[in-house]
Amino acid sequence: MPKKAIFYHAGCSVCVDAEQAVAAAIDPARYAVEIVHLGEESGRVAEAEAAGVKSVPALVLDGQPYHINFGASIDVLK
Amino acid sequence: MPKKAIFYHAGCSVCVDAEQAVAAAIDPARYAVEIVHLGEESGRVAEAEAAGVKSVPALVLDGQPYHINFGASIDVLK
Repeated sequence: MPKKAIFYHAGCSVCVDAEQAVAAAIDPARYAVEIVHLGEESGRVAEAEAAGVKSVPALVLDGQPYHINFGASIDVLK
Repeated sequence: MPKKAIFYHAGCSVCVDAEQAVAAAIDPARYAVEIVHLGEESGRVAEAEAAGVKSVPALVLDGQPYHINFGASIDVLK
């Protein structure tokens, strides 16, 4: 039973690239990756921040944030 | 046949955490992940830099660098 992972992004080019490369490379046997576009789902910014996400793109695995390169600060998405 | 991926690190706590979470979550059917400790294999720093790695930990997929959080600048490993 795969655990839940969340990939937060904002549609930026750095985000799209990270989604297609890193998020897509995650083992589906280990994690079910949910993709969340914070620009379109601004109601979830608080949830991302609570997980420690400071910029996008970021991947949250087991509740821990892993920022992948740098697309945008989460502050501009509020 | 999995493609080659390289996870560069320097033994730092941020690196170890990223290795155990992100590198370990990569789908083995898609990528065979090589782990390289640049502190112990300084001869490979130039190779990492050529791939665009600016800090560790970083994961190189299909030749593209994905910096994961920030442990140390590659400059301190030269």
